[in-house]
Amino acid sequence: MSSPETLTEDIAARLAQVEATLPAPPLPLGSYVAVTRVGNLLYTSGVLPMQEGRVAYTGALGGWDATADKGREAARLCALNALSLVRHELGSLQRVQRVVKVTGFVSSAPDFFEQPAVINGASDFLVETFGDAGRHVRSAVGVAALPANASVEIEFVLEIKPD
Amino acid sequence: MSSPETLTEDIAARLAQVEATLPAPPLPLGSYVAVTRVGNLLYTSGVLPMQEGRVAYTGALGGWDATADKGREAARLCALNALSLVRHELGSLQRVQRVVKVTGFVSSAPDFFEQPAVINGASDFLVETFGDAGRHVRSAVGVAALPANASVEIEFVLEIKPD
Amino acid sequence: MSSPETLTEDIAARLAQVEATLPAPPLPLGSYVAVTRVGNLLYTSGVLPMQEGRVAYTGALGGWDATADKGREAARLCALNALSLVRHELGSLQRVQRVVKVTGFVSSAPDFFEQPAVINGASDFLVETFGDAGRHVRSAVGVAALPANASVEIEFVLEIKPD
Repeated sequence: MSSPETLTEDIAARLAQVEATLPAPPLPLGSYVAVTRVGNLLYTSGVLPMQEGRVAYTGALGGWDATADKGREAARLCALNALSLVRHELGSLQRVQRVVKVTGFVSSAPDFFEQPAVINGASDFLVETFGDAGRHVRSAVGVAALPANASVEIEFVLEIKPD
Repeated sequence: MSSPETLTEDIAARLAQVEATLPAPPLPLGSYVAVTRVGNLLYTSGVLPMQEGRVAYTGALGGWDATADKGREAARLCALNALSLVRHELGSLQRVQRVVKVTGFVSSAPDFFEQPAVINGASDFLVETFGDAGRHVRSAVGVAALPANASVEIEFVLEIKPD
Repeated sequence: MSSPETLTEDIAARLAQVEATLPAPPLPLGSYVAVTRVGNLLYTSGVLPMQEGRVAYTGALGGWDATADKGREAARLCALNALSLVRHELGSLQRVQRVVKVTGFVSSAPDFFEQPAVINGASDFLVETFGDAGRHVRSAVGVAALPANASVEIEFVLEIKPD
């Protein structure tokens, strides 16, 4: 069993490790901003699975060439991009108190029902990164189409530590 | 005309009645939690129409065997499951100050436009249960597919009474 | 360069101009309310592109007779209706501190991926109206169908000034 101090150090080490792997913060695709703060809550815009300036996972899941595994990777990449935005806003992921809410939109053929498995790609990553503070409420739904034909779009609500 | 005291007693009686009929709190289908609290707000995850551990209403509405009436029942069942989560978290529904927001996702064929009639199944139930404190803002949209082929998924934001 | 005082006067003049053009606040299509307030946040229900009591833009975008331009107009009309609700609730748009969040649902054929261009119709209008205080986070997704066959539905979260 780890003491709370050790756990906190473990998480700090993990956050530093994650920060070292973050992509550049993605640019909004329209007339909006990436992040807003109200009191101790931080809201992100819907984040796409961006890699080197383009959407890396496209197409509806459930068709010929898109599986739930591919969707999980896309969702994890959305979370990485979101954390990049959060770090850009706050300076460090250490200022995150916890993850409050994740809303996952999965581009889905009408016979694809594995949205939870897909969005687990983001949820699991958040819990790996923040430990218990990464646990959140979540909705996962299958939508008809997403911007730039992305396979997944996810928005996040986080609580931040008081200054 | 009832006095405010009588109204409050009426609602307490109604809440006790509703609590007696709640299903067991549904288990999350992925790596997330059912409920989070931030300040005086309580957020639920997206809730499916669960009955005895399985999704009781499946399939897109607007097809051959699914009508708006069936959807209304599904939405009411989502709300019952949500209140079960809320009671599990708070101990009693009496700790609910009011319902703030309902977001209803209805699995819909492209020619099904009665999402408001469907989600009324949840909204009407909340107003029956909490009286004026059950009135909320709401979005109702038709999605391509939902987890486990559920017909309806609903998420809730409630305000809770100070401790 | 304008001084902050001039900017504030500019915005006040613009708000008065916008208020003069607002449609009547739309009636909810179901058992819910148009607006709720929790602390300094104001949530709207999902707003449709209503004009003179009916939905003015219908049908999924991406089909034969519906373009992104038509969608932009629909999204702008949603924002006008939302500001009408906000003015009805607060008495004046001057009581808006800023726009926090916009969630845009676009009725979309499976091959329509221009949801950001569509929802820009609302986002641009909010920035024209409120200046920097109109900048918000946003999700834009393509859904299978919307109430009354509307082309667009948008919900808004605003921060209001303390009394």
